[in-house]
Amino acid sequence: MNQQLAVLETVLKHFYQSPSPEPQLVAGILYSIQAGGKRIRPLLLLDLLEGFGLKISQEHVKVAAALEMIHTGSLIHDDLPAMDDDDYRRGQLTNHKQFGEAAAILAGDSLFLDAFALLAQADLPATQLVELTQALSLASGTYGMVGGQSLDMRSEGQTLTIEELQRIHENKTGRLLHFPFLAAGVLLELDVESRELLDSLGKNLGLAFQVRDDILDVTASFQELGKTPNKDEIAQKATYPAIFGLEEARGILAELLDQIHQQITALEAKGFQGAVLKERIEGLAIGS
Amino acid sequence: MNQQLAVLETVLKHFYQSPSPEPQLVAGILYSIQAGGKRIRPLLLLDLLEGFGLKISQEHVKVAAALEMIHTGSLIHDDLPAMDDDDYRRGQLTNHKQFGEAAAILAGDSLFLDAFALLAQADLPATQLVELTQALSLASGTYGMVGGQSLDMRSEGQTLTIEELQRIHENKTGRLLHFPFLAAGVLLELDVESRELLDSLGKNLGLAFQVRDDILDVTASFQELGKTPNKDEIAQKATYPAIFGLEEARGILAELLDQIHQQITALEAKGFQGAVLKERIEGLAIGS
Repeated sequence: MNQQLAVLETVLKHFYQSPSPEPQLVAGILYSIQAGGKRIRPLLLLDLLEGFGLKISQEHVKVAAALEMIHTGSLIHDDLPAMDDDDYRRGQLTNHKQFGEAAAILAGDSLFLDAFALLAQADLPATQLVELTQALSLASGTYGMVGGQSLDMRSEGQTLTIEELQRIHENKTGRLLHFPFLAAGVLLELDVESRELLDSLGKNLGLAFQVRDDILDVTASFQELGKTPNKDEIAQKATYPAIFGLEEARGILAELLDQIHQQITALEAKGFQGAVLKERIEGLAIGS
Repeated sequence: MNQQLAVLETVLKHFYQSPSPEPQLVAGILYSIQAGGKRIRPLLLLDLLEGFGLKISQEHVKVAAALEMIHTGSLIHDDLPAMDDDDYRRGQLTNHKQFGEAAAILAGDSLFLDAFALLAQADLPATQLVELTQALSLASGTYGMVGGQSLDMRSEGQTLTIEELQRIHENKTGRLLHFPFLAAGVLLELDVESRELLDSLGKNLGLAFQVRDDILDVTASFQELGKTPNKDEIAQKATYPAIFGLEEARGILAELLDQIHQQITALEAKGFQGAVLKERIEGLAIGS
């Protein structure tokens, strides 16, 4: 899978190597694209495709890279002064701290808009591309990530119910983590039952990641986190540890991971080779 | 064509009527979508399709509406304090003045991301949709509008050459005004010669609009403009009147409109009914 990661980096870099009207905009975009993100979302998609026995080509990697572009754009905007106002991300200055606020707004805008060209450039059946375009857009915009981010911004300082907290997470972080599971169903042209299994697995995984992030925000240091810890508490954000306490939040995470394991096992009964995916999830969700 | 406009409004509104995770985000989006924009870009596309004898359906209007969504998102972000810092747009408070900066950033993000779902939802041949997705993305992001906007931001207070000024305009405003001409070629499956004519016509029109906007910024009042005039001069922006003087800028605009007329006439020799398009352009480019 290290090779897949290398192809992913090449695809991302290649998209921004065309002669551009504005090299400084591209420099700002690549600063965040190459900031050492773990590439969780694209790798999940490639894990799934490989697990189902698909020989992965650069064209599949373009779909994965488009997803990473939207994720990266959202991080740049989330860090802006008017939003979470973060100075550090992954141990380096946030985009607006490095390039200024206007440049950071435009870098995020570009990543959102560029992603769909990269997706459309993939040499895959047009009907698949149209389905993926719609799914990626709905997972990202008003009916997905941005909707959740907007809810989250306005809930600061308020007491939320569990349901409200879950709705924020399902959208803000869950939808982009869920996209690989949806995209795999499209690209592999899987049967309804397998798609439903993937769908449920993807949702659980998205939730598990958010609970883990909430826990890490409380327990990890700046060095471990690469950004300022305890931001959630300072911003009075609703989090799992804030609502349930740290121990119960850990219990919820363990239970979600248990469910995820069982669902991968169910997929294995349908011919899926789940070892790589299991390992990836263990490494990400329980480890650092 | 008033009927087309009504269908366009319905399509835009309908997209935002699905149950949303975040009604307040939708309210902010609709505030700007329904702020009385002239719908120039979508109407140009529909003029072109009708002029070539196509019976326009709601599916074509979805393509036009997706374009308008990206244009509207760009206006919201252009007005932000870190960008042009405008308080008024079309005579009403700008989005961030009405809803706050974080909400305005997210409303623009949503419009950029949502546009591609609406486009993908159009019941048109999948190969056309993929081509349109790529074209709309490239016209909007790093290699189009955002690239031009970024150049423009960084050129404030600098002395530009005509070539540099043109490169800004070609990208910042030109590419989205050009998209209808490109999209018409795709949707009508026109021959190469017709596409080239449309291409050149679209580029001239984009430039004409920018020259006109520059002139209006100098000559029009707040009431005529719906926003604060003389912003360009205050921001020391490179404009046609600033570089050429007002009279010569007017001459450049007249010459561009003359070329546009000739190009429409050339299209008419290929069966295009150009009366509606000519009228639209006269009304927009010479009138207020």
